[in-house]
Amino acid sequence: MRLETSSWTDVDEASPTTALLPVGSTEQHGPHAPVGTDTIVARAIADAADRASDAESIVGPTIPVGIAPYHGNFPGTCFVSAETFRRYVRDVVESIADSSVETVVFVNGHGGNGETLSHLAREVTAEDAIECEAYLWEWMRAVDEHVGHAGELETAVLLHLCPDDVGDPVAGDAATWADTVDGGVVHQFTDEFSENGAVGDATDASPEQGERVFETAVDALVSFLERVRSEDGDEGRETGGSAQS
Amino acid sequence: MRLETSSWTDVDEASPTTALLPVGSTEQHGPHAPVGTDTIVARAIADAADRASDAESIVGPTIPVGIAPYHGNFPGTCFVSAETFRRYVRDVVESIADSSVETVVFVNGHGGNGETLSHLAREVTAEDAIECEAYLWEWMRAVDEHVGHAGELETAVLLHLCPDDVGDPVAGDAATWADTVDGGVVHQFTDEFSENGAVGDATDASPEQGERVFETAVDALVSFLERVRSEDGDEGRETGGSAQS
Amino acid sequence: MRLETSSWTDVDEASPTTALLPVGSTEQHGPHAPVGTDTIVARAIADAADRASDAESIVGPTIPVGIAPYHGNFPGTCFVSAETFRRYVRDVVESIADSSVETVVFVNGHGGNGETLSHLAREVTAEDAIECEAYLWEWMRAVDEHVGHAGELETAVLLHLCPDDVGDPVAGDAATWADTVDGGVVHQFTDEFSENGAVGDATDASPEQGERVFETAVDALVSFLERVRSEDGDEGRETGGSAQS
Amino acid sequence: MRLETSSWTDVDEASPTTALLPVGSTEQHGPHAPVGTDTIVARAIADAADRASDAESIVGPTIPVGIAPYHGNFPGTCFVSAETFRRYVRDVVESIADSSVETVVFVNGHGGNGETLSHLAREVTAEDAIECEAYLWEWMRAVDEHVGHAGELETAVLLHLCPDDVGDPVAGDAATWADTVDGGVVHQFTDEFSENGAVGDATDASPEQGERVFETAVDALVSFLERVRSEDGDEGRETGGSAQS
Amino acid sequence: MRLETSSWTDVDEASPTTALLPVGSTEQHGPHAPVGTDTIVARAIADAADRASDAESIVGPTIPVGIAPYHGNFPGTCFVSAETFRRYVRDVVESIADSSVETVVFVNGHGGNGETLSHLAREVTAEDAIECEAYLWEWMRAVDEHVGHAGELETAVLLHLCPDDVGDPVAGDAATWADTVDGGVVHQFTDEFSENGAVGDATDASPEQGERVFETAVDALVSFLERVRSEDGDEGRETGGSAQS
Amino acid sequence: MRLETSSWTDVDEASPTTALLPVGSTEQHGPHAPVGTDTIVARAIADAADRASDAESIVGPTIPVGIAPYHGNFPGTCFVSAETFRRYVRDVVESIADSSVETVVFVNGHGGNGETLSHLAREVTAEDAIECEAYLWEWMRAVDEHVGHAGELETAVLLHLCPDDVGDPVAGDAATWADTVDGGVVHQFTDEFSENGAVGDATDASPEQGERVFETAVDALVSFLERVRSEDGDEGRETGGSAQS
Repeated sequence: MRLETSSWTDVDEASPTTALLPVGSTEQHGPHAPVGTDTIVARAIADAADRASDAESIVGPTIPVGIAPYHGNFPGTCFVSAETFRRYVRDVVESIADSSVETVVFVNGHGGNGETLSHLAREVTAEDAIECEAYLWEWMRAVDEHVGHAGELETAVLLHLCPDDVGDPVAGDAATWADTVDGGVVHQFTDEFSENGAVGDATDASPEQGERVFETAVDALVSFLERVRSEDGDEGRETGGSAQS
Repeated sequence: MRLETSSWTDVDEASPTTALLPVGSTEQHGPHAPVGTDTIVARAIADAADRASDAESIVGPTIPVGIAPYHGNFPGTCFVSAETFRRYVRDVVESIADSSVETVVFVNGHGGNGETLSHLAREVTAEDAIECEAYLWEWMRAVDEHVGHAGELETAVLLHLCPDDVGDPVAGDAATWADTVDGGVVHQFTDEFSENGAVGDATDASPEQGERVFETAVDALVSFLERVRSEDGDEGRETGGSAQS
Repeated sequence: MRLETSSWTDVDEASPTTALLPVGSTEQHGPHAPVGTDTIVARAIADAADRASDAESIVGPTIPVGIAPYHGNFPGTCFVSAETFRRYVRDVVESIADSSVETVVFVNGHGGNGETLSHLAREVTAEDAIECEAYLWEWMRAVDEHVGHAGELETAVLLHLCPDDVGDPVAGDAATWADTVDGGVVHQFTDEFSENGAVGDATDASPEQGERVFETAVDALVSFLERVRSEDGDEGRETGGSAQS
Repeated sequence: MRLETSSWTDVDEASPTTALLPVGSTEQHGPHAPVGTDTIVARAIADAADRASDAESIVGPTIPVGIAPYHGNFPGTCFVSAETFRRYVRDVVESIADSSVETVVFVNGHGGNGETLSHLAREVTAEDAIECEAYLWEWMRAVDEHVGHAGELETAVLLHLCPDDVGDPVAGDAATWADTVDGGVVHQFTDEFSENGAVGDATDASPEQGERVFETAVDALVSFLERVRSEDGDEGRETGGSAQS
Repeated sequence: MRLETSSWTDVDEASPTTALLPVGSTEQHGPHAPVGTDTIVARAIADAADRASDAESIVGPTIPVGIAPYHGNFPGTCFVSAETFRRYVRDVVESIADSSVETVVFVNGHGGNGETLSHLAREVTAEDAIECEAYLWEWMRAVDEHVGHAGELETAVLLHLCPDDVGDPVAGDAATWADTVDGGVVHQFTDEFSENGAVGDATDASPEQGERVFETAVDALVSFLERVRSEDGDEGRETGGSAQS
Repeated sequence: MRLETSSWTDVDEASPTTALLPVGSTEQHGPHAPVGTDTIVARAIADAADRASDAESIVGPTIPVGIAPYHGNFPGTCFVSAETFRRYVRDVVESIADSSVETVVFVNGHGGNGETLSHLAREVTAEDAIECEAYLWEWMRAVDEHVGHAGELETAVLLHLCPDDVGDPVAGDAATWADTVDGGVVHQFTDEFSENGAVGDATDASPEQGERVFETAVDALVSFLERVRSEDGDEGRETGGSAQS
């Protein structure tokens, strides 16, 4: 169920133990993909996994703005500082944790949020005062291929989810985030190496491909939810290691 | 236009001078109204005013969680601290201001956000480093009658906007926010004076009434946008006073 | 007893269970009332209620500067940010709570401090690490009539308390805080709608009226202290609701 | 003139260029001296110097609570963290600086505030965005003899200023702040080395001695005001060095 | 030259335009490598590049503790929060920038510091108030092979730099940072997947290999310094893009 | 043992109960002494005391930059704000405390860090969540004579420790920190009263004198470690008072 459209009595009745928190970004995604791409994809995956999962889950509010200062020179990009982002998500998690929820999973759609969310998940899990465990999940890690930025995979997923919001897919001005030279970061802003803002070639993206990628991601998230649920329920985090073998 | 579904080139072309920033809350709204009520209403009003206005406007990302600790004892309520909220919205405004946008209007759907947003609007306007003016607008102030909490007016607007997400309207356990006794605040949490969480009687709410209230609010916002636009353009904020006479 | 003029052994002997913390502001109050009006009134009410109450109370240090950025364009106005204010008062409460004091009541004289103090009272009460309950009390809420800004009521109270510090009462340039138009806040600074800084007409204010208003406020605070004391002592905060019926 | 009891029009007319900001503390001062000793003395000296000085000065609000965690185990002691203290005083100075005031002098009555105020004065002076210079002045540095804690000098000054608030002067349980052993600080709280909280012997303190000490301090402050005023006016801070010769 | 062992007159004479700031970590590096590995390597590379470079460079103080909470369950690991780390390094850079230095290069030895330093470099470069450009350089990016954690490459470099501080190289309990399953992070602490704390097999590491790797890294840094120097000097950062072609 | 060059298994085996944390500064020390003087001396004393002491001690990472804004106008000076410094050291202590360490002793080489470290030591000791006690130790307090700034004593110690890094000792342009006039601080930056940056006359400094001073400091620290160890072990901090008699 989606929290936004449920009443508190609905939530009380369902007593969800797992909360999916979609975390997106509002940032340029080339000339063809919407600025809200990361938000749209994260929310859609969270909703789909929530429906497909056996877990007693709920989809929390979508965090719409993340850490994207390097896209700041493109119109339409919004961002917050890493510390502001951490505080906002943390406060949200704290208020969610004060309920039936025992596990919070960040469903992240923007790579730039990853490290901060990863630290936060650890912080929340380790902190006695917050009574829940938190985990980071990213759809970009759940698919085999490399997800560029407004490249083939991301554009395909958008064509599957919201074709009306996608323009004519283009080839990005850069094939990769080529920001490292001699071991150092020379490009601090995207517009220094990509005029159109896209990384990767989206011209061959299709909605069919997008559906396959989307389903792969949703399946992975459903599996991940199952995994953290059983770990938490059975033996606690200490035994997590053996789950790998 | 809505920022989330536009590409950066769309934004670049439109070069909007006014940004509407919907600010909501995720908090209990009685047994019949969704937890996301304030978010839903703020976003809908911003979108409608954006379409109806002559201003070159854009609707920014919706801030989904605000200042609502007093509802914290009800399941499904999320909130952040006033300082975290201020920082998050401020960072978003700063990144928006670094563009064609000259005026940001907070379209607020939750009373608890009001004072912090009001201070922030003043702070942004006064700060030279942030090149835009900011204003607070609240739909609760734009309608003549008192808007309770999940009461008649709010429920009516929801019946107009998203009837499927509204349960059977109830009478709130409290008629008003009766938290002051002898000049002091005795009730610090909503559940101390209202078991079902609603304030006001929503049983007579109708979608027709909701549509009227909604249109009134949208018209007021359109008028407000016109007002701040002309003031900014003509003579600057100093002449604001005469607009009152 | 007043903390400032007592020794630690006096405090130790008295072992007060309730602390009144006067919270004021240093801000323009029209051409006739002193900049310290809110501080003067809050302190005087706290002192009088402390003397009149049966509670084992003490009057803590008076917080002299609060949240008043909107008066910032008038000479003599001092203010701090909401977060700075919250931190300062919170630290003071924390150090007070580490004693015999079980209840802290903010005796607030400035409307602009209200919401932040209200949040802080809730925060302190809810936080296990701070061993006291905190409540917000405001004299402006304890009197029936509307208290403007350097208007009739406030000026009358000053004529009762410190007539030598009051100039010739004037009629304010504004009858009300008319800052809302079309649901939005157009005036962010007081000088945009009031040249002399006063709101309301103080020309008929008299010390006799001031004494009546003052006594009403003091009586209300004494009653409020009794109320929170009995609630805390008897059954705890959970039963607060019944006190309303 | 004292800001608290002046109207904004009084301030506007006087257009003071120097603001004296009394900074005190609320902390145990032995069994005979009031908890507000540092506040009382700082305020009295600032008021007297303001009257005696030719400078166009004003006395700002008195900061009543400072940095005194080491006295925290005695009843009646209040304190804030160094960072909270810095923020509060800084915000006050910023709002004062946005006026005719060009120089702010902290009139400090509590040693524990000294280093933080010294850093803050430097910070304010160096920061272009705050248009004033700030200086630290401490009465304990202005008198030749060592000022203990509720010892002879401090008690004498209180006997001069507010004899009714002083109990029978005692000999402190410690002659000096003997907290260093082998180069390290072994005692982190006053009650570890002084049961009655006083440092130094106050039994011989007299109001006559207090008057002399007080006048010495006031004269020094008047002289200091003259010094910083002429330096600022004439040649700027760079020439301060020559004042030493 | 190294700042630590130079006098201010030495620095004044040299008037360096580039500052290398070694940034390390104090964290477990398996049973054979010292806890200060990242600090030792970063400092050594910075010193060597400083000597080899034609740039007028200086090596600043080495930041010894970074972001390493995931190693926290191993004895000897120290870490600070990302925000604390950012603030500390930023303050250091600000004070360095107030001199002849125009370019600051973070010579980073710990992957966990990377993203925060990358954001900080961008922040510093973009901020007008800080008059220098900052860049992130990491030796792990400068060598072709993957650098594990106390694995072959890192151990080899240590055998070259400080053989006495290296124990018998071991094979790590994990071959890679295998923390992602189904797209989510399951292991939040290193001890969940590696008992001895090492990642990669160091048993074949040799000082000769270490010397080669070290020289490769130093050469890359020298080249990077040349690059950012010429870019800054010639045409500014805007032309950075062409350096990629 | 020194943490930097030990492996985590070394630390695990030793299970140290006392951690010495050297805290230095990077600031001008006249034309003859290195900018890192305070860091060099603090680290050397900590290492020597660690070796000489019977305590199961370890020397943690050296904090290289402290609170030295007043030296900021000299090339080569680095500094951080007091709050940044406090946060950084506190985070380090927190991570150290989560181990076998029960006592942390700050071995401070820079007077400007003293008060902040003293507050922090108290804060750490008093905070239940951090399971260790912290103490401030300063070598400047451990020697009988007054330690200037790059004066005779400090220079002598450097001549003993690192003669190659010391230039021709000079007489400082100031004999003392003559910053107080009429009870106020007139000089906020060192360059206002000393052109060469040194305070005190170092021309007679000798390595022999330096060795004696150094040994005195080390002996004092060893004795201090013994003291806090026995106090903690035996009767706790409450009995500290008797150590004074």
